[in-house]
Amino acid sequence: MALLLNVTDPERIEAFEKAFRDFPVRLVRSDEGYDARDIHYIFTWQPVDDWARFPNLRVVFSVSAGVDQFSTLPGHVDLIKMVDGNNTQYVVDYVLAACLACLRRFPVYATRQGQRLWQPDPPRSLANSEIAILGLGEIGQATARALCALGCRVSGWSRSGRDIPGIACAGGEAGYLSLLPTADIVVCLLPLTPQTHGLLSGAFFDRMKPGAALVHAGRGAQCVFRDLGDALRTGQLGVAVIDVFDREPLPEDSEIWGFPNCLITPHVAGRTDAGTAAANVAQNLTRLRQGRDLLWRVDRQKGY
Amino acid sequence: MALLLNVTDPERIEAFEKAFRDFPVRLVRSDEGYDARDIHYIFTWQPVDDWARFPNLRVVFSVSAGVDQFSTLPGHVDLIKMVDGNNTQYVVDYVLAACLACLRRFPVYATRQGQRLWQPDPPRSLANSEIAILGLGEIGQATARALCALGCRVSGWSRSGRDIPGIACAGGEAGYLSLLPTADIVVCLLPLTPQTHGLLSGAFFDRMKPGAALVHAGRGAQCVFRDLGDALRTGQLGVAVIDVFDREPLPEDSEIWGFPNCLITPHVAGRTDAGTAAANVAQNLTRLRQGRDLLWRVDRQKGY
Repeated sequence: MALLLNVTDPERIEAFEKAFRDFPVRLVRSDEGYDARDIHYIFTWQPVDDWARFPNLRVVFSVSAGVDQFSTLPGHVDLIKMVDGNNTQYVVDYVLAACLACLRRFPVYATRQGQRLWQPDPPRSLANSEIAILGLGEIGQATARALCALGCRVSGWSRSGRDIPGIACAGGEAGYLSLLPTADIVVCLLPLTPQTHGLLSGAFFDRMKPGAALVHAGRGAQCVFRDLGDALRTGQLGVAVIDVFDREPLPEDSEIWGFPNCLITPHVAGRTDAGTAAANVAQNLTRLRQGRDLLWRVDRQKGY
Repeated sequence: MALLLNVTDPERIEAFEKAFRDFPVRLVRSDEGYDARDIHYIFTWQPVDDWARFPNLRVVFSVSAGVDQFSTLPGHVDLIKMVDGNNTQYVVDYVLAACLACLRRFPVYATRQGQRLWQPDPPRSLANSEIAILGLGEIGQATARALCALGCRVSGWSRSGRDIPGIACAGGEAGYLSLLPTADIVVCLLPLTPQTHGLLSGAFFDRMKPGAALVHAGRGAQCVFRDLGDALRTGQLGVAVIDVFDREPLPEDSEIWGFPNCLITPHVAGRTDAGTAAANVAQNLTRLRQGRDLLWRVDRQKGY
């Protein structure tokens, strides 16, 4: 009975070796020899090439909160997402940084810096801004609370609907549509599902307030990047900060690098803490041995 | 007895016309004919070419909080700086945006975007960061409090020394030196004086923690820009957000536009509200008529 660490980061491997020192599950690194039949558990960010190689696989532990990459995982294998308070705080800080950067037009000034153009724009204050959060899971709720505390008006949408004090929440399949016309910034923190695939499209941008901002820290496949480029070029979107892409790393020849008034960050909004990841996995394997329910199990139907 | 509005912004002129409708001081716009001997008061951002043209000038009201540009104003003329709560909040928001941008390395990613280079760096969290504020006047204090509320460790320096709860304050001529080696971000909000002229020099950057960040929203002449470029190129300074320059607008051929890992914003940290400016001037002119002390008077010896 072994746990395969399908990661290369030495900090992560070291954290697992520490957490599993006295644990009755053997750790196996991906770069050492092993018998695939011994592998009951895998800790990984990306899916393995062929799940059938692991006939005794029972649980996959995702390195990240997003788990859409595991759609090919056989249904009988449990999938566990990562829940990490540090990671949540990193994403909250990122969204806060991105929203403030949009209000103060930093991506616009970065574009003008490339053109050696000195041209001030009127600023917009936090207190006079409305920010719509799409996705109200653990991370979306924490982000909404942080923006509220800074004095923004915050609205939010999740398909299942939420009730969060101080935040105007919409639910239902198309509930997000009602938030777009008045928001100064739309923040996407949605999980990738068939319903959210391609959501950020030309029709979506057209419903937004002219000149408003987009912060995208969901998943690349939720955005139609050609439409994003068009919206930025016409000014329908005034400014954007984008952290996720249809292909990552973004290829050198992608036209996205050159979108105007758009800051590109290389998928850095969140960062799972190595110690927390190891502790979470150990906690769940202990529960499994005790015959208790697994924590943070993904609903494979809903996809998150 | 007239007040010369040496500004062109229609919003500002309109705000003064409204505030002075029933006021026993005549308003004069700079683009209309007038007898300079009638001008007792001037509202202006920049000094006039020749103060001697106005033999009866008694008070100059600055559009901005910074007043270093008025060094040639005759000593018998009172100089009033602008104190505007909205402006303070704009600068606080700007510094917050700039600090978060530095912690999440947005200026570094903007430079890499220009090179089409996908290269993530570890993030730094607000809660694990130490931020040193140079200048603890009205704006510096408000900034320090805002950063404190977000969980940063905040230190500060002002020549005269301050006592602010929760903030490690240094005073004295060289007190800032003790803050530099441990700060992750140094924020300059100092007034321009002979003592602060050229303060942000190579020797200053060398004392900072290697790879730390600079946010400069003080005055351009406080920075030796050649040294700033060198510090950014060697990596001694990891990242910078700069709002003020030795020449403004920054000329198209300035090498500063091309500094790596440095976001350039066109002097937009603060913005004086037109209504507040008009109300402040009207309030002080009322006090003058009543024989009371003027508010917000600049100490011409200290320069602020």
